Amino acid sequence: MGNTFGRLYRVTTWGESHGGGVGAVIDGCPPRIPLAEGDLQTDLDRRRPGQSKIVTPRKEADRCEILSGVFGGKTLGTPISVWVRNEDARPEAYREMETLYRPSHADYTYQAKYGIRNWQGGGRTSARETIGRVIGGAIAKKMFGQLVPRLSVTAFVRQVGSVVARMDAVRVEAREVESNPVRWPEAKEAEQVIRLIERVRSEGDSLGGVVECVVRGCPVGLGEPVFDRLEADLAKAVMSLPASKGFEIGSGFAGVRMRGSEHNDEFFMEGKRVRTRTNRSGGVQGGITNGEDIVFRVAFKPVATIAKAQKTVGTKGKSAELRARGRHDPCVLPRAVPMVEAMTLMVLADHYLRDRAQNGLNR
Amino acid sequence: MGNTFGRLYRVTTWGESHGGGVGAVIDGCPPRIPLAEGDLQTDLDRRRPGQSKIVTPRKEADRCEILSGVFGGKTLGTPISVWVRNEDARPEAYREMETLYRPSHADYTYQAKYGIRNWQGGGRTSARETIGRVIGGAIAKKMFGQLVPRLSVTAFVRQVGSVVARMDAVRVEAREVESNPVRWPEAKEAEQVIRLIERVRSEGDSLGGVVECVVRGCPVGLGEPVFDRLEADLAKAVMSLPASKGFEIGSGFAGVRMRGSEHNDEFFMEGKRVRTRTNRSGGVQGGITNGEDIVFRVAFKPVATIAKAQKTVGTKGKSAELRARGRHDPCVLPRAVPMVEAMTLMVLADHYLRDRAQNGLNR
Amino acid sequence: MGNTFGRLYRVTTWGESHGGGVGAVIDGCPPRIPLAEGDLQTDLDRRRPGQSKIVTPRKEADRCEILSGVFGGKTLGTPISVWVRNEDARPEAYREMETLYRPSHADYTYQAKYGIRNWQGGGRTSARETIGRVIGGAIAKKMFGQLVPRLSVTAFVRQVGSVVARMDAVRVEAREVESNPVRWPEAKEAEQVIRLIERVRSEGDSLGGVVECVVRGCPVGLGEPVFDRLEADLAKAVMSLPASKGFEIGSGFAGVRMRGSEHNDEFFMEGKRVRTRTNRSGGVQGGITNGEDIVFRVAFKPVATIAKAQKTVGTKGKSAELRARGRHDPCVLPRAVPMVEAMTLMVLADHYLRDRAQNGLNR
Amino acid sequence: MGNTFGRLYRVTTWGESHGGGVGAVIDGCPPRIPLAEGDLQTDLDRRRPGQSKIVTPRKEADRCEILSGVFGGKTLGTPISVWVRNEDARPEAYREMETLYRPSHADYTYQAKYGIRNWQGGGRTSARETIGRVIGGAIAKKMFGQLVPRLSVTAFVRQVGSVVARMDAVRVEAREVESNPVRWPEAKEAEQVIRLIERVRSEGDSLGGVVECVVRGCPVGLGEPVFDRLEADLAKAVMSLPASKGFEIGSGFAGVRMRGSEHNDEFFMEGKRVRTRTNRSGGVQGGITNGEDIVFRVAFKPVATIAKAQKTVGTKGKSAELRARGRHDPCVLPRAVPMVEAMTLMVLADHYLRDRAQNGLNR
Repeated sequence: MGNTFGRLYRVTTWGESHGGGVGAVIDGCPPRIPLAEGDLQTDLDRRRPGQSKIVTPRKEADRCEILSGVFGGKTLGTPISVWVRNEDARPEAYREMETLYRPSHADYTYQAKYGIRNWQGGGRTSARETIGRVIGGAIAKKMFGQLVPRLSVTAFVRQVGSVVARMDAVRVEAREVESNPVRWPEAKEAEQVIRLIERVRSEGDSLGGVVECVVRGCPVGLGEPVFDRLEADLAKAVMSLPASKGFEIGSGFAGVRMRGSEHNDEFFMEGKRVRTRTNRSGGVQGGITNGEDIVFRVAFKPVATIAKAQKTVGTKGKSAELRARGRHDPCVLPRAVPMVEAMTLMVLADHYLRDRAQNGLNR
Repeated sequence: MGNTFGRLYRVTTWGESHGGGVGAVIDGCPPRIPLAEGDLQTDLDRRRPGQSKIVTPRKEADRCEILSGVFGGKTLGTPISVWVRNEDARPEAYREMETLYRPSHADYTYQAKYGIRNWQGGGRTSARETIGRVIGGAIAKKMFGQLVPRLSVTAFVRQVGSVVARMDAVRVEAREVESNPVRWPEAKEAEQVIRLIERVRSEGDSLGGVVECVVRGCPVGLGEPVFDRLEADLAKAVMSLPASKGFEIGSGFAGVRMRGSEHNDEFFMEGKRVRTRTNRSGGVQGGITNGEDIVFRVAFKPVATIAKAQKTVGTKGKSAELRARGRHDPCVLPRAVPMVEAMTLMVLADHYLRDRAQNGLNR
Repeated sequence: MGNTFGRLYRVTTWGESHGGGVGAVIDGCPPRIPLAEGDLQTDLDRRRPGQSKIVTPRKEADRCEILSGVFGGKTLGTPISVWVRNEDARPEAYREMETLYRPSHADYTYQAKYGIRNWQGGGRTSARETIGRVIGGAIAKKMFGQLVPRLSVTAFVRQVGSVVARMDAVRVEAREVESNPVRWPEAKEAEQVIRLIERVRSEGDSLGGVVECVVRGCPVGLGEPVFDRLEADLAKAVMSLPASKGFEIGSGFAGVRMRGSEHNDEFFMEGKRVRTRTNRSGGVQGGITNGEDIVFRVAFKPVATIAKAQKTVGTKGKSAELRARGRHDPCVLPRAVPMVEAMTLMVLADHYLRDRAQNGLNR
Repeated sequence: MGNTFGRLYRVTTWGESHGGGVGAVIDGCPPRIPLAEGDLQTDLDRRRPGQSKIVTPRKEADRCEILSGVFGGKTLGTPISVWVRNEDARPEAYREMETLYRPSHADYTYQAKYGIRNWQGGGRTSARETIGRVIGGAIAKKMFGQLVPRLSVTAFVRQVGSVVARMDAVRVEAREVESNPVRWPEAKEAEQVIRLIERVRSEGDSLGGVVECVVRGCPVGLGEPVFDRLEADLAKAVMSLPASKGFEIGSGFAGVRMRGSEHNDEFFMEGKRVRTRTNRSGGVQGGITNGEDIVFRVAFKPVATIAKAQKTVGTKGKSAELRARGRHDPCVLPRAVPMVEAMTLMVLADHYLRDRAQNGLNR
């Protein structure tokens, strides 16, 4: 029962990797926002398998279809239903999963919780469910395009394995990120990372990494005391992504080594605007945006599905050895970038509408 | 409008540091759970100011009163209203805040969002709001005492500034943690940390750190795909605490440097129970508990309120210098421990009831 | 943003009468419930146009397709997505609506609220949206078939225009109701009602009426104080149906003329079971079911779309005369019966899961 | 777990008739609304016992105290906590209820659901819980006073027993309603109703009736398709009040006897405003307000607590005779008027904020 996200901008996703398809229903989107399938396809293409040599070679076009909520090219204010049909499903490739639990996957926990599971391709736990998230984020992006055009959300790969990009988040440009298949902030460095990913794949192994995200042009005042602080909702949003293991905002874990006098962000006036000299807060103070860039990072573990042999147990409690066949990503990071952006956009859209509800006439 | 937490075990908190008091209303608690004010007071005392020489010397007894929802010493199944009256309020100590924005505090963002703020003691942004959280957690603890007695939640201070405790989370005992005012897992090491805190305070400065939390005896099957994964809800819960800047579960940020073959948690049978040899997953796989210990960490920034002089601006846009008077914590970590436990208990209680709703008769 | 119903058994519907189709996503359904498309089709066929001579002759097979949430014939515990493709759409038949507001329809209010509307066939306001509700109810019925097999929900037409059925609700049988196209509790009387409907249709006019619903075998204890009383949630559920104007439970509006001494339901013991001699409460006391039959009634206004000429205004503010073309129901009552049942089942399913969450281990 | 009402304007109530007190926490109220305890007291006084000779003579001043959310006489945008201490509690007067189930009360259903109940004065099921609702409504009224000053909500008693007031709702004035203790729309007729109530009380019996409510000056566009239609949420709101048995809006149950051609509300232009000649819709079309008066009625059963002897059973399953002692209302209608207004205001406030969230910039 956790398949809906948001209080006002509400995204409900559905679907398993094998079955009719996957999709999302977006409720609460303001009316008269221009929207067409092409607007969604751009981000879906950034998420889809087979987009480059360093991701899984599965061939899914992931063509989306808008079934409702749009009329004459504009949103109606009623639910927007979008889906993507499943195409390149190969249930037979997963036959082993029927009786084996893949290590560090959800096979065992789903079976234990529900007493049943769709073992074909991981079912609901497949990364294929993130199509619904990307749709939800892409529509939020269109909403902001109309209502807050200056707002932009740019994620990129900060780290793969032990290789860390040096560039400061505030200097990262979406164009450069998209210019290379790793979504690394500097295209030149990216070559080295691509070789690393290819080498690890050839060893039958996998890599983890960190995605960083920067939100520019966010209005002041988004976020709610006390439980729905903006960073709390961002944390929940990205920690709900498959394979995520950590979240930090602004100074994050490194900031704990500083003294208060070093860490505090001094205020100053820039014309009529209150600004901060540093941004260790990461754009959020007391749970509410202060107008500075929102900057946060998400840790993704190395992909659990690997070609190397692993020990595990089966549904009947017998020990077994497993060696993943099928087609898998050696590193989820490049495809995680649009997912992190999508979740971020959903959180911002929800809080934008919440703020407009309560404080609409104040500012 | 973000003052309620949880879907089934619902905690609504209210109150400012200066005003009538602070409190919580807990809705959804099962009936017939033994509950008395003393049950709540234990954890409130672990949170309250003045409990030791390394926390703020404010004198607030924080005596709670249960106003509803309990009859004959047992919960009724109806809302439990609990409050703590404000006592040691000194609004005059905060007069400066009426016109100045404290760096890295919420003064500016609240003013910008609402066009008004209770500047006395930080109002709703005061750590005093966490009293409501501690109450919500303490009642959840009583619920588990009745329904899942083997479940325990133990948090402790893993790091203060650059000093890191070495003990493995699985070996930490609540008794040892509570034996020293830092809530450090090893009482002997704690002395060194106390001295560090005292020194930094004497310099008019402050420290950050990391709280770690371990949940033992958690039932298999808690957590919901896809947005309400247990780690997502834990992340939101603790990232809503004042001063938190990061969250990681299991292997966390360090895990991204491993290969999949090192990182995966191999399954094996322990009698009839499916177990994992390692616990890099941190007790959660695919968003659902697998019965291993849940282990996560929360980063807290150095306290923003410091006696050292800082530059800032005022509500009229003028530059100013600020030097905190009042009575403040030099390090929030010792008092953050019961807060992290409380938020964790609230998340677990909510997911326990959610699981019972959907899967109650399966297992 | 009001397209989701229920807290635990959650039904989200989407779709306009003209567009890709209509559908529903059901989240929170327990796992391992047998479910196939045929289970849904039975109730969809009771709702669909063209099923008899007294309803609209539109030809829509309303064949549903389950896209997710079911595996090997059983529910997975993950969202169940079901849709029905739009087929017999004739947008040109509605061209007039582009510029005219139909009296007592939602054309004007949608335009005023959203600044845009899908004027083809009423868009989201078309009764076609109730397909999603019927799907949500049919799945709830399957859930109860597994978890509370004795529970049954039977609605029927109590009144059409001024003709009132005399039969006592407790004696009404589903088989008899389904034996005639009006869904009248006595097949013989139904003939007279059919003739009335045909006559009014031939006059280019329409009729209203009352649906009554009886729930048998409902467990004791469903419903929550104080806002989510069972009758409150039932009222909301059926008052959200198109054309509904009133709701009453048990003695209803007539009961206000009685004295307390006449109206009170005396308790007595039937074996070990507490029962009431009369049932003016309608099966609910203090918002919670008492195990007696739940009995309530819903008033539906005469259908707004009529062939007779009516005065109205256009989107530009000009006066105009309107005479509905298209194909319409002269009386919504027969098709309202499965809708009322569906909404009732959704409410009961939600409260059943809510009760299991909070009180699961008490009884 | 049903003690919170509303999605954006959220009212959580708590408290039993015997215990510390009763109260409400209001979350989501816009900031900078003038608010003082006196604003709430006016409506609390209209609800309280002992206000006139025809209601229960219990003596409770029901003095409220605002504990949070207000600063310098204005709302802060943070939760507003208000409570009323219990004073005239006489638990001994209810000793019989410990072992007996009062007919048509909630004693049995609470015991069955929760396995425990506060039998003193009905506990949570006492009408005393409606204090929280009146507080929630009074704050909504202040909000509208600031944001939509032309909006007014006026309820009155339309019927007591078989006596029905003749005045048209649109002509009813709040001043006249408040001029007599029955809250009857015509003060002269009220005398007769007072005598009826007194006579029935002297017979140890009780009366039911109907409250009618008219909302004037409501903005166009409130209400959401498809489940959260305004009439659906109004129905839920008032059907959650103690003793309510029915709801109808506009033409209601009587309208089902009309033909469509009589029932439809013809549109016409009044200057630039779209209006309807008749108002059988009751101000709502397609679930959304059309700017006409919202008019609806609520049926209340005769009070269940009567002095006459009644048969019942006890908690151990033994037959018994019960004769209510204590102090009770012979007719709940006069005190139901402010409750109906409060629930209406809460629904309107919630939908006003919801509309502002989604459509804020359109109009």
